Amino acid sequence: MAEVKYEITKNLGVLSENAKGWIKELNLVSWNDRAPKYDIREWSPEHDRMGKGITLTQEELAELKSLLNNIDL
Amino acid sequence: MAEVKYEITKNLGVLSENAKGWIKELNLVSWNDRAPKYDIREWSPEHDRMGKGITLTQEELAELKSLLNNIDL
Repeated sequence: MAEVKYEITKNLGVLSENAKGWIKELNLVSWNDRAPKYDIREWSPEHDRMGKGITLTQEELAELKSLLNNIDL
Repeated sequence: MAEVKYEITKNLGVLSENAKGWIKELNLVSWNDRAPKYDIREWSPEHDRMGKGITLTQEELAELKSLLNNIDL
């Protein structure tokens, strides 16, 4: 199985934590030594295993921020 | 292969579109007839195929909104 090299370069905040201790976070993550991208994803408590998530560019995150500021939450 | 039943109950906005026409969107999506959850995901142009994404509760999305309003983008 191919290996994905990643590094969490900056933790920007926690969205939630589930009963097993997995944490849904917003991070800046560098994949395969490339420039870091924004990333919303679940991580194991030690950050050594990753769950499902999505990577976003700065432009996409800015658009998301704009959308969220027009939604009642 | 098991089937996942889903319905986009509300389109809340587009984050980006790639060269192949796939669109990254914020939606409310009902999975297997359950109550809709917020969902950030890539979709094919016709919304008949889905890519990677993440599902968020209202509380998680509110937390994300709060985080984004404290980040310079």
